[in-house]
Amino acid sequence: MQEYVAGVDVGGTTIKIAIFPKYERAVCSFSIPTRHGADQFLLWGDIRDAIFEKLKQLGLEREQLTAIGMGLPGPITEDGYCSKLVNIGIGACYPAKELQELSGVPCICANDANVAALGEVTYGVAKGHESAAMITLGTGVGGGIINRGRIISGRHGVGGELGHMVVNPLEKLPCNCGNRGCLEQYASATGIVRSARTILKETTIPSKLRAEERLTAKGVVDAAKEGDPVGLQALEVFGKYLGLAISHIIHTTDPDIIILGGGVSKAGQILLDVVKNYVAQLTHITDKYGDIVLAELGNDAGTYGAAALTYTII
Amino acid sequence: MQEYVAGVDVGGTTIKIAIFPKYERAVCSFSIPTRHGADQFLLWGDIRDAIFEKLKQLGLEREQLTAIGMGLPGPITEDGYCSKLVNIGIGACYPAKELQELSGVPCICANDANVAALGEVTYGVAKGHESAAMITLGTGVGGGIINRGRIISGRHGVGGELGHMVVNPLEKLPCNCGNRGCLEQYASATGIVRSARTILKETTIPSKLRAEERLTAKGVVDAAKEGDPVGLQALEVFGKYLGLAISHIIHTTDPDIIILGGGVSKAGQILLDVVKNYVAQLTHITDKYGDIVLAELGNDAGTYGAAALTYTII
Repeated sequence: MQEYVAGVDVGGTTIKIAIFPKYERAVCSFSIPTRHGADQFLLWGDIRDAIFEKLKQLGLEREQLTAIGMGLPGPITEDGYCSKLVNIGIGACYPAKELQELSGVPCICANDANVAALGEVTYGVAKGHESAAMITLGTGVGGGIINRGRIISGRHGVGGELGHMVVNPLEKLPCNCGNRGCLEQYASATGIVRSARTILKETTIPSKLRAEERLTAKGVVDAAKEGDPVGLQALEVFGKYLGLAISHIIHTTDPDIIILGGGVSKAGQILLDVVKNYVAQLTHITDKYGDIVLAELGNDAGTYGAAALTYTII
Repeated sequence: MQEYVAGVDVGGTTIKIAIFPKYERAVCSFSIPTRHGADQFLLWGDIRDAIFEKLKQLGLEREQLTAIGMGLPGPITEDGYCSKLVNIGIGACYPAKELQELSGVPCICANDANVAALGEVTYGVAKGHESAAMITLGTGVGGGIINRGRIISGRHGVGGELGHMVVNPLEKLPCNCGNRGCLEQYASATGIVRSARTILKETTIPSKLRAEERLTAKGVVDAAKEGDPVGLQALEVFGKYLGLAISHIIHTTDPDIIILGGGVSKAGQILLDVVKNYVAQLTHITDKYGDIVLAELGNDAGTYGAAALTYTII
């Protein structure tokens, strides 16, 4: 009897779920809305019900489901403790333990950006690599460090929190975390827009972006691709700080491969070029380090990584 | 029959060797001079001969030696390849493989600072911890990252090269590695002296250090302990950059415990105080992170770590 696992990616708005024949690619993928600020058991119950309903639709027996993996938007320690899920309005909890009790199926969970990194290592661009670092460049900046095929969640669930490395101690404006000079302030979509706005405000450099009513990260990068001087400068700021953070990762865990994911990474080769240039300038102790590449799985990295997470417990 | 292992710490001047009953503390420790720039096989031969001679003196059979572990002052990849040992004048080699062929005993090697970290985790201040980061503050700055009880050597042997993280991209003067702004330029013994000299030169702040003919790191720290303003300022520079590097490590692997070792760490509590202050300022994403402590094994960390390294192959 074919065995299956479920991969769950819990986001602030929707919960993505995919069903996988063990070690294979997903046979189906769907979403349910995220219940906010309710009792946590209602949330885990929604997930259980959605998975069981889908199994029925697929004509599968409940016993064919061997495990559920789950990525969550918060810090998760190696023993599965989560201090809070801010975007969902849930406090301290043990998500996998609760879902396991509700469903009767073995469960495991980890931080969503960590899980995405595991997804790329198991199913995506880093397939076949034992170690990797992934930086997810979206509205914020997340990260994941994989070593010997496993996520480094860290003792306090802070492993791979690459977006909050301080890369510019001279920054005056605060990050969402309350600190100043975090990578997220320069390498997120919001950060790229902020950099462009600052350059537009503080210089008289001619730019097509001056005519834009509403700047977006895509708009700034597209301008850079066309040679717009302000777009290019904003991209240099992005590359300088992301390059510094990647250089720190190389000097710490020296992964096989370094993956850029998230919405911003869709800008493609131009991002790789600028980042690689700064990493080379900042890394002198070795001529060789992991290649820097673009993620492959896109929005599926979360569910694929959550499936991969179950392979460590089944 | 009691089984033994040998722990070898290869330095630029001397090679320290200790003999350990398996999983226990050393029964003896001694040194031999390091042969420089010779054929590498003479060096490995010296080590083999010294170990076998010592076994004889201890009245042990050669068969009681189950493995040899070795720490070396250069980058070592996870499969035991070393691109060069600059301080010893040896080029590309596979040290453990060669020593194993010469001695007939299973051998394993890793970078010396990585090995020292494993020593503290297995026998020293971090005993019982599964993960740790150690920063060795000596003439230079080395480091080691331990996760799930094992060294992260990295794909290219650069894991734990914490001394060459760029913590000050604005630095004008070059580091020994050719880069500018490496941690080693501020947190090594040489770095502390350099910071004090710069402050003395660029300010008129009164200081007993102005009368010193030959500044040493110990002299600068001792002055700070007595409240000397230049000594205290130099110590702040040290703390600021070391604190930044430690904060990067927390955001990457989030270890159980963070260990300061090497000659500079003998300055004790005053170092911990200044470093902890900066780490707290730079780490907002979590209230909890690994405690920062002083190493316990001192100069023995290398041989103890090398012994611990053998426990992964026997």
